[in-house]
Amino acid sequence: MKTEKTPTAQAITQTPFPASRKIYVKGQLHDIDVAMREISLNDTKLHGRFGETEPNAPVTVYDTSGPYTDPNIVIDVKKGLPRLREKWITSRGDVELLDSISSAYGRERLNSKELDHLRFGYHSKPLRAKAGMNVSQLHYAKKGTITPEMEYIAIRENQRIDLLKQQLNGQYDVMSQQHQGHSFGANTPKGYITPEFVRQEVAAGRAVIPSNINHPESEPMIIGRNFLVKINANIGNSAVTSSIEEEVEKAVWACRWGADTIMDLSTGKNIHETREWIIRNTPVPIGTVPIYQALEKVNGKAEDLTWELFRDTLIEQAEQGVDYFTIHAGVLLRYVPLTAKRITGIVSRGGSIMAKWCLAHHKENFLYTHFEEICEIMKAYDVAFSLGDGLRPGCIADANDAAQFGELETLGELTKIAWKHDVQTIIEGPGHVPMHLIKENMEKQLKHCSEAPFYTLGPLTTDIAPGYDHITSAIGAAMIGWFGTAMLCYVTPKEHLGLPNKKDVKDGVITYKIAAHAADLAKGHPGAQYRDNALSKARFEFRWEDQFNLSLDPDTAKEFHDETLPAEGAKIAHFCSMCGPNFCSMKITQDVRDFAKENGVNEVDALTRGMEQKSKEFAEKGSEIYL
Amino acid sequence: MKTEKTPTAQAITQTPFPASRKIYVKGQLHDIDVAMREISLNDTKLHGRFGETEPNAPVTVYDTSGPYTDPNIVIDVKKGLPRLREKWITSRGDVELLDSISSAYGRERLNSKELDHLRFGYHSKPLRAKAGMNVSQLHYAKKGTITPEMEYIAIRENQRIDLLKQQLNGQYDVMSQQHQGHSFGANTPKGYITPEFVRQEVAAGRAVIPSNINHPESEPMIIGRNFLVKINANIGNSAVTSSIEEEVEKAVWACRWGADTIMDLSTGKNIHETREWIIRNTPVPIGTVPIYQALEKVNGKAEDLTWELFRDTLIEQAEQGVDYFTIHAGVLLRYVPLTAKRITGIVSRGGSIMAKWCLAHHKENFLYTHFEEICEIMKAYDVAFSLGDGLRPGCIADANDAAQFGELETLGELTKIAWKHDVQTIIEGPGHVPMHLIKENMEKQLKHCSEAPFYTLGPLTTDIAPGYDHITSAIGAAMIGWFGTAMLCYVTPKEHLGLPNKKDVKDGVITYKIAAHAADLAKGHPGAQYRDNALSKARFEFRWEDQFNLSLDPDTAKEFHDETLPAEGAKIAHFCSMCGPNFCSMKITQDVRDFAKENGVNEVDALTRGMEQKSKEFAEKGSEIYL
Repeated sequence: MKTEKTPTAQAITQTPFPASRKIYVKGQLHDIDVAMREISLNDTKLHGRFGETEPNAPVTVYDTSGPYTDPNIVIDVKKGLPRLREKWITSRGDVELLDSISSAYGRERLNSKELDHLRFGYHSKPLRAKAGMNVSQLHYAKKGTITPEMEYIAIRENQRIDLLKQQLNGQYDVMSQQHQGHSFGANTPKGYITPEFVRQEVAAGRAVIPSNINHPESEPMIIGRNFLVKINANIGNSAVTSSIEEEVEKAVWACRWGADTIMDLSTGKNIHETREWIIRNTPVPIGTVPIYQALEKVNGKAEDLTWELFRDTLIEQAEQGVDYFTIHAGVLLRYVPLTAKRITGIVSRGGSIMAKWCLAHHKENFLYTHFEEICEIMKAYDVAFSLGDGLRPGCIADANDAAQFGELETLGELTKIAWKHDVQTIIEGPGHVPMHLIKENMEKQLKHCSEAPFYTLGPLTTDIAPGYDHITSAIGAAMIGWFGTAMLCYVTPKEHLGLPNKKDVKDGVITYKIAAHAADLAKGHPGAQYRDNALSKARFEFRWEDQFNLSLDPDTAKEFHDETLPAEGAKIAHFCSMCGPNFCSMKITQDVRDFAKENGVNEVDALTRGMEQKSKEFAEKGSEIYL
Repeated sequence: MKTEKTPTAQAITQTPFPASRKIYVKGQLHDIDVAMREISLNDTKLHGRFGETEPNAPVTVYDTSGPYTDPNIVIDVKKGLPRLREKWITSRGDVELLDSISSAYGRERLNSKELDHLRFGYHSKPLRAKAGMNVSQLHYAKKGTITPEMEYIAIRENQRIDLLKQQLNGQYDVMSQQHQGHSFGANTPKGYITPEFVRQEVAAGRAVIPSNINHPESEPMIIGRNFLVKINANIGNSAVTSSIEEEVEKAVWACRWGADTIMDLSTGKNIHETREWIIRNTPVPIGTVPIYQALEKVNGKAEDLTWELFRDTLIEQAEQGVDYFTIHAGVLLRYVPLTAKRITGIVSRGGSIMAKWCLAHHKENFLYTHFEEICEIMKAYDVAFSLGDGLRPGCIADANDAAQFGELETLGELTKIAWKHDVQTIIEGPGHVPMHLIKENMEKQLKHCSEAPFYTLGPLTTDIAPGYDHITSAIGAAMIGWFGTAMLCYVTPKEHLGLPNKKDVKDGVITYKIAAHAADLAKGHPGAQYRDNALSKARFEFRWEDQFNLSLDPDTAKEFHDETLPAEGAKIAHFCSMCGPNFCSMKITQDVRDFAKENGVNEVDALTRGMEQKSKEFAEKGSEIYL
């Protein structure tokens, strides 16, 4: 167990990406600046025409790295990130600033002298909905209000500056046709994502905007299957490892590489203070599993958990700014014995805690019996539900069984209740599932949960590769993302073996960005293939630096290339280490094109038609000989 | 460019796997010993019953590592591996031993003094079919002969000792029902793979057994969609990197981690000698792309290639023992202009070489016009065709276009010609393909190529992750393997950036074993899930060492675990670093089971039924309140 250490600026990564600059796109409906990353490209050298070049337009990409990659913003981890959404929230006139935090445990921690050295300094008073008010984005959406959050998301999701420009020519509502069906499907929506489309998807419950009024540092993002597939990165300490500084850097590091949300799964010491540091310094929504901390409060004895203690934990975390809570309210007593014959029983920590509590007390899950009271808390801060799949399968053999699907039906029942309260809701999914059983998970989830967004862990498609479960699960994640899952919870190489370190976090995030992007391509998201095409054109034209800079991980791409051809010259050479000077297929293709040019297209066509005729004759003649 | 270095025993990895021993299963029809790997497991400690245990049966797995992992076999790289198949081949009475090698170039290299220091010493005279004879496994299969190779494969494919035992109780032909349809499909074949089933699949052209009569060191294996999905690892030097010793170690290293075949794609210096060293020391079939070496012979000038020079290259390599040749005979002149509008044109090296030749000479591809003469060479040594997809897409944007599918139809035409000569044939496939376009590739290949085995490179499902293309492609590989692709050509993290080093080769092989196994599970191969279940049971019972030893990469699994909990004690502890002592879901599940035991199943059932009733009432009552 390392000693606690609070974050210092030096320990937090904040260098911009190569050839990239932060740009801010102005809103049309609201006074907002949407942060994006613009990658500038080199000119194309026109083959065989010495010195002649043509320019390549810069590429804009969705950016989750927050202020850390903007050299114009001074980062002070002790003060936290700029409070981007604060004005938007307070100007709605439906929140009040509390004199002090409402949670008994929170106050206890605040007043404890021994914690002074590791407490986040700039503790601001929490906001809460005024009595009788509901501050959820779902509530606003249902009323027909397009919030600044919604417009921010619309601009951000489109990614492409060129599409955005067209968008300004009044082509706003094309996307509003696109929300039918179980995903974009194979047929690409030709339109653009509009603020009104965002509002409609949220109002329908098909998408959520995790945005606790006490986490104004978070840049608005959306989770729904008609938007870019999102990824979550889990961090957090445990009784046996990690420090606060490490966890904050892991969160910032995960966002740098593309994490759309962060879950703090800390189960060790000082998780209240650790969470505060993370929330104040993270530009994406934060999720937690409150039952973990509740269990710490009763020294790990599940049977000692009570509704009152859990309720105080929800309020404690809601006032810190947690954007979504995993709540295992679907683990009903009647489902528990269904897991007894499984190879790996119950593998969800939250699920097994509730199962143990139910059996110990011969009572139904208190998260289920108190669900409406939980909804009352959620809507006072706009915390979203992530209804936990406590009975998810822990191995291939246990996939798609009665316990798992029984719980899923209950999560569907709870979704309706949450929606009655205008509380935003997503549904958690497995786990370990072989490829041929993945689609059934998506279909049942859409049916039972009325199209609420699905949020899956992988799934892992085989159990036999510990040390490589980022890969076993990326296969399942890409597929279920294509089928309609809105957010993919990453799995790192350390899954089943240990807690992820910084390298594991990056490996997990990059691997899941690959899965999510592969799904966006398969779904035909209008902004997705743009980046693939730009990178492939750079690759074909031997613009090595552009290929690196357009990739998900420029550092690694450059490093791998330089292992075999380090010289700067090599990066502009018209060959690479795989083939050598005489022998590059891309060079030969260029020769083929030049040949076509030199001889004139018509002549080549004639030649081709001629040859086609000849080789048809040959084939026919051949066919006689051959068959 | 490193200086040449011939292999020494020290440089070649030959340690057995942990807790594993090499076993040899006797044949029933032939006097053969089929090598397998047996992993022994620890006993299960029965929870709550001090000292009481129950044993776990050892797990047998398919093993491609060859004699290197058998401590009883002395390895001498200068002499090469034991010639396992030599007797089987010569005893068929249809081959003759030549006085000297037939290739002019081969003789030239053999007689060159400067090459003495890097030539493989034990050069044996080559075998060739007697005049008028055909020595291909396809030829034997069509005649109804079950060869030793076929029985070896049947035993090997079943993997499970327990299934094998049942097999000996005469349940031989169940599998012969299973060859219909495009793969095993979701429903598992209940039967076993029999020698007769192997013969039928080969006779039908649905499977190939690469087995050049001059590569007797190779252990028989099969490529077909009704068998385990296989993987290929590419190695080979280029003009700018690698030594002979490195390449041989890469080949042995790739086999250790699971490569079913090795392709030597050398394009640099001394590739004739490098190939000899690799073939003599590799226990799996070797594939090459002969046009690469042919191009070296004309100093990289594609237009200088001739049929005579290529023909001599085929004979040179066939007499060395290459088991399959990639031949780009489908790159027809009329297809070439179809690639001019692509983002990445022609990315296959062989394809672009032939395209350049065709245009330079205004002639049809000589591999196409001389195809029957190539067949005559193939059947004299039993070299299999791997019909190359020279026009495969090099990026997402170019996937499934007219050039690609035009060539595929021509490969189907050539397959029929090869089969007329009883030459075994597989078909190469892409490449870069987004998920939603993958299935079409499999369906068109089955249709146009009369169910000849498909052999794909990935496909990569996005272009934006250079440095991680083992992952972008594993997603596509697992899916197309499930759809029916018989062999997956690995992609390493260095794809597009450089030549793979040893670490890259291992990363690529393990990643592709994952993809292939995920496909076997989805196809319901009878022997596949056995290993997942054994590992998951070990995981659930905290048998850490067993979990490591059953995994694809025991070294990495153990190393990752030990990073956070190095103590030996931790490996028998009933918790892990992810959760800590109080907090392990698997421990809690065990408590749930114990609770069920203590209270008697009936009582729990009663309790459950009772609670089920209660919570139904609750839900109903709730429903009234709620909705």
